[in-house]
Amino acid sequence: MSVKTNRESDVLRKIERAFRPQRAGANSSLRVSIGDDAALVRLDSNNEEILTCDWFLESTHFIRDKHPADSIGWKCLARAVSDVAAMGGWPKCFLLSLALPESHTGQWLDQFLGGLRRVSRKLKCPLAGGDTTRRDEILINITVVGAVARGRAVLRSGARPDDIIYVSGSLGEAEAGLRKVRSAQGRVNPKAAELKKHLYPVPRLELGQWLAEKRIASAMMDLSDGLSSDLPRLCEASGVGAKIAAALLPLPKSSSGLERKQSDLLQLALHGGDDYELLFTASRERAKKVPRNFRGLALTQIGEITSARKILLVEGIGQERKLVAGGWDPFRNAATKK
Amino acid sequence: MSVKTNRESDVLRKIERAFRPQRAGANSSLRVSIGDDAALVRLDSNNEEILTCDWFLESTHFIRDKHPADSIGWKCLARAVSDVAAMGGWPKCFLLSLALPESHTGQWLDQFLGGLRRVSRKLKCPLAGGDTTRRDEILINITVVGAVARGRAVLRSGARPDDIIYVSGSLGEAEAGLRKVRSAQGRVNPKAAELKKHLYPVPRLELGQWLAEKRIASAMMDLSDGLSSDLPRLCEASGVGAKIAAALLPLPKSSSGLERKQSDLLQLALHGGDDYELLFTASRERAKKVPRNFRGLALTQIGEITSARKILLVEGIGQERKLVAGGWDPFRNAATKK
Repeated sequence: MSVKTNRESDVLRKIERAFRPQRAGANSSLRVSIGDDAALVRLDSNNEEILTCDWFLESTHFIRDKHPADSIGWKCLARAVSDVAAMGGWPKCFLLSLALPESHTGQWLDQFLGGLRRVSRKLKCPLAGGDTTRRDEILINITVVGAVARGRAVLRSGARPDDIIYVSGSLGEAEAGLRKVRSAQGRVNPKAAELKKHLYPVPRLELGQWLAEKRIASAMMDLSDGLSSDLPRLCEASGVGAKIAAALLPLPKSSSGLERKQSDLLQLALHGGDDYELLFTASRERAKKVPRNFRGLALTQIGEITSARKILLVEGIGQERKLVAGGWDPFRNAATKK
Repeated sequence: MSVKTNRESDVLRKIERAFRPQRAGANSSLRVSIGDDAALVRLDSNNEEILTCDWFLESTHFIRDKHPADSIGWKCLARAVSDVAAMGGWPKCFLLSLALPESHTGQWLDQFLGGLRRVSRKLKCPLAGGDTTRRDEILINITVVGAVARGRAVLRSGARPDDIIYVSGSLGEAEAGLRKVRSAQGRVNPKAAELKKHLYPVPRLELGQWLAEKRIASAMMDLSDGLSSDLPRLCEASGVGAKIAAALLPLPKSSSGLERKQSDLLQLALHGGDDYELLFTASRERAKKVPRNFRGLALTQIGEITSARKILLVEGIGQERKLVAGGWDPFRNAATKK
């Protein structure tokens, strides 16, 4: 009998179900596995290990003839490290799995490795190994190994009713950049300022570590698929709901020029993916310690956690409506089709 | 300027070169990275960590309409764990990256997860996390995290002239199985005895650990691409050559029935990939401790390490010829085209 599923979360649930008896079993060093930004493994030391892997595939996550190879190299590692930032940890090393057409083993590969090496140095996350193979399409998979002080990892599941909800930076700029790339003829200029956040995202490692170390965040995740997709995940993991205010969202500062109206910018901020900002919650007491600005990065209160398990958006003068996920879901859309 | 490369080793060299300055730098916890079966990371304890990742891709590594989903699930993990066995370590957990067509999220996925779960239990290697996405083709990437007692990992680089060369089990059966699968109409019977080694390989974890713990092996790797491809890699890493005897090779016990002549079986044993047996070397002194049979698994002397950096095959009554790599190289051939 064939069970039809059509969403990433359904596939994940199936995998989780298949391995549940085992994970609850003997191997107690696995503290968190499926269902958070990354896995946590207890080490024999003061630290826990963070494990995460990420697909980065032609046509799904980038467009071969439009995205600069240098930015593909940068972004594939940056977005994987973002999952480590989302736990409050730091990266230790990464593995690169790369499948390439013969035609891309020359200049393209050099530029790809150039971008990858720059971000690897910036994030202090050296290459530890990997696997290469030939393939008609460009396929990338990145595994990042990170660490976090024992007991300090911030999970998705810690949000409690009345906690304040925060986001770092601004939301929607990466999506605006993607639109610009899609509408471009041929490969875009990697130095264009309005594309920076889309092409060269920077994981919020310092912020994540600070929030974990000071025990300020009760729950945390990174925004990879868009607020309207990711906030429900955090709430589901925590068994809570949320109410956010449209007027509080940090809208894109730069945009593709295609969005003129305020409502377009709001849609970008709500549903745009690939920002790699941090979404976190803090109790009202701990929230007093959260500055408006952390080392140059804005931290914005966008709403609060509720006990009612709904995700509500407050618009205008207090009208509430259910927030419907419009962000990234690979089983629904892809970079080229969205 | 585009530099054309056409072999996996060229791509690997390029990656190694791009990251060399960094790897030699500050991060001294990375003891082995590119160039061995897996990476070694020093932990803050008595153990070192082993990290390895492996592609398992439709049309390159398996055929969607011929290989049973159950065996694809089994094999993708078994072959990745084999790299841990090849270092003398044990697996701790794994990450699954899976890209699937919508049409394969039902029965196919159930059977895939069934095989994956069985081997995961058998090898005591639980699922720690992963990433899923939608894709027209089935793409799998497996990361395995393992461990080995500090200083006991057996690398490819330790072989010395005069060391004896050994292989475990028999060689070429997996390749014979692949031929049978290729010539079959539609999906094969997963229970066929002659396909067992091809569909359900078992990594030689116990042997690898014993050889490492007793400090018997001077160098070791697993046979994934075939003896004629893998032996030169071990020799290159060690800065040595090798002389092996055709008459000593443990030929396939079962074959596809397509190979009738002794010379066909020899070709299978020399060039057939996917056996996941261990290739290891031992000094003449240590070799005294190597039994002919380790817990039911044959251990066979097939030749010796030489200082002359050539790979020679001795045939008939002592004729020597250079052994030319005829095994698996994804930049040369693929499962469907080979």
